[in-house]
Amino acid sequence: MHWGDIVRTKVNAFGPLVLGIDPMPSHAPSALGSAPDTFLPQYTSALLDGAESKVGFVKFQSAYFEAFGSGGVLALARCIAMARERRFAVILDAKRGDIGATAAAYAQAYLTPGAGDLEVDCLTVNPFLGPETLTPFIDCARSFGKGVFVLVKTSNEGSGWLQDQRIDGVQVSHRIADLVSVWADETLGGYEVGAVGAVVGATYPAEASHLRQMMPRSVILAPGLGVQGGDPAAMAGMATDTGPVLISASRGITAIEDRSLSVGEYVGVVSARIDAFRRQMGVMSDKAS
Amino acid sequence: MHWGDIVRTKVNAFGPLVLGIDPMPSHAPSALGSAPDTFLPQYTSALLDGAESKVGFVKFQSAYFEAFGSGGVLALARCIAMARERRFAVILDAKRGDIGATAAAYAQAYLTPGAGDLEVDCLTVNPFLGPETLTPFIDCARSFGKGVFVLVKTSNEGSGWLQDQRIDGVQVSHRIADLVSVWADETLGGYEVGAVGAVVGATYPAEASHLRQMMPRSVILAPGLGVQGGDPAAMAGMATDTGPVLISASRGITAIEDRSLSVGEYVGVVSARIDAFRRQMGVMSDKAS
Repeated sequence: MHWGDIVRTKVNAFGPLVLGIDPMPSHAPSALGSAPDTFLPQYTSALLDGAESKVGFVKFQSAYFEAFGSGGVLALARCIAMARERRFAVILDAKRGDIGATAAAYAQAYLTPGAGDLEVDCLTVNPFLGPETLTPFIDCARSFGKGVFVLVKTSNEGSGWLQDQRIDGVQVSHRIADLVSVWADETLGGYEVGAVGAVVGATYPAEASHLRQMMPRSVILAPGLGVQGGDPAAMAGMATDTGPVLISASRGITAIEDRSLSVGEYVGVVSARIDAFRRQMGVMSDKAS
Repeated sequence: MHWGDIVRTKVNAFGPLVLGIDPMPSHAPSALGSAPDTFLPQYTSALLDGAESKVGFVKFQSAYFEAFGSGGVLALARCIAMARERRFAVILDAKRGDIGATAAAYAQAYLTPGAGDLEVDCLTVNPFLGPETLTPFIDCARSFGKGVFVLVKTSNEGSGWLQDQRIDGVQVSHRIADLVSVWADETLGGYEVGAVGAVVGATYPAEASHLRQMMPRSVILAPGLGVQGGDPAAMAGMATDTGPVLISASRGITAIEDRSLSVGEYVGVVSARIDAFRRQMGVMSDKAS
């Protein structure tokens, strides 16, 4: 299914919230263990239980799996399979980027149907090496309807160091947004939403609003809620018919201080926090909770 | 051992050549197989045989392992172990970059002693998200002497789209080089070579020469030989006492057309090509081959 159609369908059914899965044992119940082959699948399973029938998208952050070594990546493959079986749309936040045949190898790993056990619906990619290096990813969007999120304006405090700077009078983030907009128009799905979208931090709402207009047929992925302080209602309000805004929260939903919680209690906490985020985004009325 | 000291020692013993390991079955002997758990270790083993006592450094390109799925990353861990056992200095070309705790997770995966089976001596990182996002990697350089190569000017044709552009009159690549130079001075080893260096494509020799002067105590990693057309002698000539230049070749050493070669014949081809590159770099006289 085309990424734009997946997004449109899931947003209609569940709203724009994306559950970010950033596994760290230090912020999870001790009962989930800490070894990669137990902790990572059990943690993911608990989060999916809490998100069931409330959230349409999960975003795995590759770094937290890689931090466990090769066993962590093996577990990532299992977690991706688990999420797909349970009908969540799966985003992998891996921010890959390289040149020529090497970029093609990344596209093979993550965005080529049937290629391997790390295949996902959508991948984040880094444009630093130049637009032509993103071609293999865009080709997967063209050929298979796979989703691509290009980093345009990231949520961190120092993202302006490069992304806000002007080159011949035009901000770097805007130069990239112009490309994303073209690639989106070349990869439209049934709902007129392109398969190529952008990462735009929820921490910069004014900038996000402008970028929303620059990329009218792209999905925007907006991280930076919760810990980083982005405003979910403001971001949700920027969505248009052809330009959905997905809003991801990770630690704001998943991190706990009291590691003695049972797994069942943890699922309850996750579920309640998801309800709270959905209310803030206007997906549920207060009464519905 | 501090990365700067590793580089100085290996360059003195073997010269500046880095063997790039970019495994693709389509450019390797059929006898090496194609499944990740057989092809990847056997291919790496054959290359290490061909490089034995001639090359001090290997550079694994993570993408080509990830392209095999999680089994490829499992094999990468085995290949890293194999190279370390055989006393090669190990660079992982993964171009990672992310924000805050996520960047720290990548630093944990690849640059933290004893953390896991993907630990290497040196990692390539991407500065697009801003200098503060590189902090966890620089911290590993400071605390453990681990090596970091920041992308400064990449070898691809389109790298100028962003990297050559001027912001307030200063090229993006130069802004990054200024930071690398400071980080290098903060992480000097016994030979006055910093642990933080830069990727500078061999395809831009004039620019590389200028960048060499801007980062006098950094190791430069120069890819782009062979297929991409960089000049090994010109790059080797830019080395200084405190600023070694490592020159990596991948397909120029490893790719073959005739897949019917035996493994032994393939090792011979690899070995002969390494000799040819070393001669071009002035490491061996013609007679010594």
